Amino acid sequence: MQIENHIRSQILIDALPYIQKYHDKIVVIKYGGNAMTNSELKEAVMRDIVLLSEVGIKVVLVHGGGPEISAMLKRVGVESRFINGLRYTDEQTMDIVKMVLSGKVNKELVAALQLNGGKALGLCGCDGQMIVAQKLESEVDLGYVGEIKKITTKPILDALTNGYVPIIATVGTSETGQSYNINADTAAARIASCLRAEKLILMTDIKGLLKNKDDENTLIPAVNVSEVAYLKSMGIISGGMIPKIDCCVEAIRRGVKRTSIIDGRVPHSILIELLTNEGIGTQFT
Amino acid sequence: MQIENHIRSQILIDALPYIQKYHDKIVVIKYGGNAMTNSELKEAVMRDIVLLSEVGIKVVLVHGGGPEISAMLKRVGVESRFINGLRYTDEQTMDIVKMVLSGKVNKELVAALQLNGGKALGLCGCDGQMIVAQKLESEVDLGYVGEIKKITTKPILDALTNGYVPIIATVGTSETGQSYNINADTAAARIASCLRAEKLILMTDIKGLLKNKDDENTLIPAVNVSEVAYLKSMGIISGGMIPKIDCCVEAIRRGVKRTSIIDGRVPHSILIELLTNEGIGTQFT
Amino acid sequence: MQIENHIRSQILIDALPYIQKYHDKIVVIKYGGNAMTNSELKEAVMRDIVLLSEVGIKVVLVHGGGPEISAMLKRVGVESRFINGLRYTDEQTMDIVKMVLSGKVNKELVAALQLNGGKALGLCGCDGQMIVAQKLESEVDLGYVGEIKKITTKPILDALTNGYVPIIATVGTSETGQSYNINADTAAARIASCLRAEKLILMTDIKGLLKNKDDENTLIPAVNVSEVAYLKSMGIISGGMIPKIDCCVEAIRRGVKRTSIIDGRVPHSILIELLTNEGIGTQFT
Amino acid sequence: MQIENHIRSQILIDALPYIQKYHDKIVVIKYGGNAMTNSELKEAVMRDIVLLSEVGIKVVLVHGGGPEISAMLKRVGVESRFINGLRYTDEQTMDIVKMVLSGKVNKELVAALQLNGGKALGLCGCDGQMIVAQKLESEVDLGYVGEIKKITTKPILDALTNGYVPIIATVGTSETGQSYNINADTAAARIASCLRAEKLILMTDIKGLLKNKDDENTLIPAVNVSEVAYLKSMGIISGGMIPKIDCCVEAIRRGVKRTSIIDGRVPHSILIELLTNEGIGTQFT
Amino acid sequence: MQIENHIRSQILIDALPYIQKYHDKIVVIKYGGNAMTNSELKEAVMRDIVLLSEVGIKVVLVHGGGPEISAMLKRVGVESRFINGLRYTDEQTMDIVKMVLSGKVNKELVAALQLNGGKALGLCGCDGQMIVAQKLESEVDLGYVGEIKKITTKPILDALTNGYVPIIATVGTSETGQSYNINADTAAARIASCLRAEKLILMTDIKGLLKNKDDENTLIPAVNVSEVAYLKSMGIISGGMIPKIDCCVEAIRRGVKRTSIIDGRVPHSILIELLTNEGIGTQFT
Amino acid sequence: MQIENHIRSQILIDALPYIQKYHDKIVVIKYGGNAMTNSELKEAVMRDIVLLSEVGIKVVLVHGGGPEISAMLKRVGVESRFINGLRYTDEQTMDIVKMVLSGKVNKELVAALQLNGGKALGLCGCDGQMIVAQKLESEVDLGYVGEIKKITTKPILDALTNGYVPIIATVGTSETGQSYNINADTAAARIASCLRAEKLILMTDIKGLLKNKDDENTLIPAVNVSEVAYLKSMGIISGGMIPKIDCCVEAIRRGVKRTSIIDGRVPHSILIELLTNEGIGTQFT
Repeated sequence: MQIENHIRSQILIDALPYIQKYHDKIVVIKYGGNAMTNSELKEAVMRDIVLLSEVGIKVVLVHGGGPEISAMLKRVGVESRFINGLRYTDEQTMDIVKMVLSGKVNKELVAALQLNGGKALGLCGCDGQMIVAQKLESEVDLGYVGEIKKITTKPILDALTNGYVPIIATVGTSETGQSYNINADTAAARIASCLRAEKLILMTDIKGLLKNKDDENTLIPAVNVSEVAYLKSMGIISGGMIPKIDCCVEAIRRGVKRTSIIDGRVPHSILIELLTNEGIGTQFT
Repeated sequence: MQIENHIRSQILIDALPYIQKYHDKIVVIKYGGNAMTNSELKEAVMRDIVLLSEVGIKVVLVHGGGPEISAMLKRVGVESRFINGLRYTDEQTMDIVKMVLSGKVNKELVAALQLNGGKALGLCGCDGQMIVAQKLESEVDLGYVGEIKKITTKPILDALTNGYVPIIATVGTSETGQSYNINADTAAARIASCLRAEKLILMTDIKGLLKNKDDENTLIPAVNVSEVAYLKSMGIISGGMIPKIDCCVEAIRRGVKRTSIIDGRVPHSILIELLTNEGIGTQFT
Repeated sequence: MQIENHIRSQILIDALPYIQKYHDKIVVIKYGGNAMTNSELKEAVMRDIVLLSEVGIKVVLVHGGGPEISAMLKRVGVESRFINGLRYTDEQTMDIVKMVLSGKVNKELVAALQLNGGKALGLCGCDGQMIVAQKLESEVDLGYVGEIKKITTKPILDALTNGYVPIIATVGTSETGQSYNINADTAAARIASCLRAEKLILMTDIKGLLKNKDDENTLIPAVNVSEVAYLKSMGIISGGMIPKIDCCVEAIRRGVKRTSIIDGRVPHSILIELLTNEGIGTQFT
Repeated sequence: MQIENHIRSQILIDALPYIQKYHDKIVVIKYGGNAMTNSELKEAVMRDIVLLSEVGIKVVLVHGGGPEISAMLKRVGVESRFINGLRYTDEQTMDIVKMVLSGKVNKELVAALQLNGGKALGLCGCDGQMIVAQKLESEVDLGYVGEIKKITTKPILDALTNGYVPIIATVGTSETGQSYNINADTAAARIASCLRAEKLILMTDIKGLLKNKDDENTLIPAVNVSEVAYLKSMGIISGGMIPKIDCCVEAIRRGVKRTSIIDGRVPHSILIELLTNEGIGTQFT
Repeated sequence: MQIENHIRSQILIDALPYIQKYHDKIVVIKYGGNAMTNSELKEAVMRDIVLLSEVGIKVVLVHGGGPEISAMLKRVGVESRFINGLRYTDEQTMDIVKMVLSGKVNKELVAALQLNGGKALGLCGCDGQMIVAQKLESEVDLGYVGEIKKITTKPILDALTNGYVPIIATVGTSETGQSYNINADTAAARIASCLRAEKLILMTDIKGLLKNKDDENTLIPAVNVSEVAYLKSMGIISGGMIPKIDCCVEAIRRGVKRTSIIDGRVPHSILIELLTNEGIGTQFT
Repeated sequence: MQIENHIRSQILIDALPYIQKYHDKIVVIKYGGNAMTNSELKEAVMRDIVLLSEVGIKVVLVHGGGPEISAMLKRVGVESRFINGLRYTDEQTMDIVKMVLSGKVNKELVAALQLNGGKALGLCGCDGQMIVAQKLESEVDLGYVGEIKKITTKPILDALTNGYVPIIATVGTSETGQSYNINADTAAARIASCLRAEKLILMTDIKGLLKNKDDENTLIPAVNVSEVAYLKSMGIISGGMIPKIDCCVEAIRRGVKRTSIIDGRVPHSILIELLTNEGIGTQFT
């Protein structure tokens, strides 16, 4: 890009207060949606993370992998079944989920970050008993869909201390060794709170919370968690936004300083959110 | 087992010199064959490793996963093709190999070790650029079958330092991010030499090197690497034994103190090899 | 001993949960009686301690030395006098006690442990002011029989940190430099509680606490300290057992997790107690 | 500045390889000229240094202070006398030089850096015997003009380790305690080489080395030290440039990787030099 | 000095309990008066400090520099004006104060200590934001006379940890970067209390607190801070003694163990105070 | 002692360069003779050592105990027999030697040093296998008189690191556990060289090396080891001095910087030797 040097330097200087703010702090990023499927966006995310690491911010990347799971299930002839937006997970499905998430998606992310100059370590919930899970109790049986019982932060902190970006596949393991499929948003929120993260970022395919969900110009840039109930009652928080925002609220309640829902469709949305004045998306505090 | 206490204590005492010998030393175990497919043998291996860790031996577990790979390939309708005993690995196959090894086999081993009271961390060749690979040059094109260019020991040593048994899936990654299928025996030998391991153990489904390969009573318990050429010329080392023994020789040449080919069909063969006087199988020095 | 390897390995595996339980924990052993005078038993004790150290248990050995003291006193023509089971200790006797305990018995134990492959450091109460003592107040004057005023754990912890088994002769020193003869059971109990030991083991020449003291088949394997008063009132705890069990009770009250009275006449009784399911003797909790 | 976020993020990303290159490396900056007298430029320099520190670059700031010294000398009625471009330094002058450099200029820089969010520690050559000096031998007596005999890097490294930007006033002290006036360019070059700095930057009031010194469009962006003799013979390096470029050459010879002469009149010239592709000024390698 | 060796050794031995008492403890010395202007006394002070450092006492030296400031002000033609014993400090004066204190006096002390074999680091209030100051509120405007808002002990502790004697010029800096002239006695007292010093020593030109201020034989060797109010009411503490003794009282109240006012006119008064039985001057506890 | 403070302080200051010289350095003192039997001298030695420790010198005390051994042997009716000045050591004698040295003399020294405010740890040759010994080969059989095969410095260095003065009884132990009687001068010299000591001091009951052995005014204050052969040939070094001086020469040859033979009959001779200009006795370099 042909930009004059005085603009370049000014922009770097403008980022300084934000770099100082997050220096040596933990930022947990839930990675997903278009930012993960579109290769250009993916490349931009990898660069963002390498830059953040390089300037002293401790990034933890948490990912799901819905589309790749569905593709693999289809390939082996297992039908994907969703109940209330959650994938029904029988034993066969669980096997595929685990393989795809921790053997394919996770490892591809590790390789991609390293191609961009970063250092990464892929972790799955079973490594060092990081995500101890149990069956999610619900009215309808969901099979091996799990909920988090306990997070062991040691493997994550070890990776950070040793200079790696931990990249986490959200497969949990029960105390008897059974694998469970864990929602990645929930896992990211829980990991962020156990790490006392400075910030949790959920990447989505929407602009953020909109006053009028059909008008992207009505973005609500900041929400206090105390306002969430009201926004739900008004129908402003609705549908698929509810569980995501519940994650944000829960994370804040358990000690994360700030959480943001950002638009993963915008290249470098993570950098914009963390290192510019305006940020992007909706921030909860 | 109903054994008198004085026998119990004597046996523990008998193990003492061997515990002292390997205390704080690195032992690399290549895990495979029946010991991996038979669930009782697998359980025994896990217990052996936990015991060895507990008495201060630094175990590194390296594994392949041929049968599970073949099963998965079959399930997605990809034909397994072998050329000179090596799996021809096209792009589709590589994808499945990676998923199965690092997403299924590796994670199951991590969970199994932890179920038995150990602490484990699953690593794949891409994590922390542990196994840097390149295409294996050979007369016949083998696709994405790779050879090791460089081992980065840092992620393995970090795991040991942090108190974990590193469990390694032998998928390598090239400097441009391409995955390669790496022979697990070769990888174990190379990792052992880069770690300056005290011992490398290759688990197999044979008794060891036999003078007469049809008579299990003709086991050769110890071989000096200088005798290998002669044993090959005599046909005593032949067939599938050749690459395994070449691994042993290569490891010794590059600085591993001892390597053994042991019979994985015998329960607790690792313990017997490491903590008893007679050992088991054939040891190369 | 000709034992099949599968039994050997099974027995090692059986010990695993106990090794895990005491790993990195402090175990204080009061060594005395037949286990100290019989050379075969002594050899077995030394091996037990080396094994325990090697598997990561922090052993502290506390010893007395009655028979050797008596022999030396006799040799220099000083009459041994006992009042209520305690040796009357005049200045001459104190001199001999100190010399024999810290110059002979202690140093022989250090050498014996090292002959068996261990690393040991002999400590006497004066070293680093480890056992600060004062005259034991009693109705009958006992001369330089002392009681413990304060334990300085630093020299013991330094020795453990530097990789040695501290072997402790229980001669105390007052703040004015006077030596005092300290009962080894009491010293072991007090040291164990100051070190917050996981376990205190008192080696004796009896099977443990017996319901019927004439019938070794009536061993009481476990006692809660709250039951001790009752057992005393019933005469089950009586005679020479009273001070030993008082030591156990006192140790538990001051923070030691478990204490056992074990039969030192059984070879490897320490290993059996610590690393087998049944244990040996009577355990107080 | 109103700049679109995608440009902001792109520019940050563009800086990434340069941040990686200098991460944890030492960069010595000789600060002087307009960049020091013009308050806006000074502010920009301070921000640049804070940003560089924040992204993990270890900056060492070395400064002179000619104009302030001249002003103070004038105020106390001491005439400034220059011989071959070097200030003749009698005892009175030396006193003023020391006071102004280490008591005024140095402390103002420390305060300025901290006002911009940095952490700074002011050091003078006598602190921790950092700059050991002796009288500069020359044909004409220059009084207390000194040359460096030895650099003690400990106080500089201590400051960096403790998280400060060391700001260095170039007053040297002889072994008998006599202060000497040291040329700041020379001191910066020597300090850089003793610290094995990755880069030395000399800020000047010219664009860099020009082929035609009257035409700023003839900047020579890169020079290999082997070419310097030729450039001098051609008159391209001449006049006041000679000692500066000699400093650069000397620094490279003694182990500094790169040195640059940059235009301090351009705001953020340090950032542009370090974190952009083109850089600014003339780089010697 | 021709002194017999047995006397030499006895005197060293006599100092032992005092060396033990202050070993590894922090002693803050406010240096001033004749001890600073007389070169022989100054030499003795430097030696005392080097000796104290060498025997393991952590000395922090705090100094003012009134006479040198006045001389410089006179030289640049600025009139010294005192209001209630405090120097009225306009901008010009502040500039001179800062230069003289941190650029001349401080650096000369650093050099002098090093000439005597010590290691010193000169610090000014702005270094590492050590002395954060604000305008002293008083009835009459005093210009840039400041009071301490906060002490950052990190740069002082860093210097001690790195083996230096920190020598502190008491110029403070406000949060907006403005310099303030801080009374050195007050600064020493505040620094001592923030460092939880074992002792604060104020060097003066009087013998100590005298019952009859005209008779040096009426020295009061020890005062409890609770007696100060009474001594003031009796006029025994009066005039210039009042602020000094208020510093002592304040320091004791804020956690310093002991403070002494000693006679800087006596050579080696610091050694005598710290390492002899009688001490010198008046001690407050 | 009534000494004026200015003399006291001057003497302390006079000691400063010597304190600096030995700061953090190891000084090995062989303690014996009158300095050990006379209680006032002993007290002075203890104080000297505490003072030296306190000012940062790492003292290692090595002792014999001839008179106490002889007394004890007499008491138990074993005749002392000397061959060429070396005690013939049968098994009974060895037992007594060990007991007296490590159980009586050593422990009394530990207690004495601590009574004077020091921290001490008693070590015998068997502790941590510090002195590995073997039978001294000689024409006449000397029984269990041993020579040093190897010094393990770890227990000594551990003690110094943990803040103790190691006090060493020179009983050696062979690899098979046999105790040997080791000459204390030789042991001190060997320990000093293995520790790369700055100085070895041998305390004796003579003034030093005398030109005329009947005239104490003919002390030779300094000898270069190259002159020793000549001094022997002249008969100046003769009789009991020969082995002592051979120890000094050997120590210097093996890396000790300086060794001195000092007069232990002079109170505080150690302090005088180490901390005054003239020293005392004869120094070998």
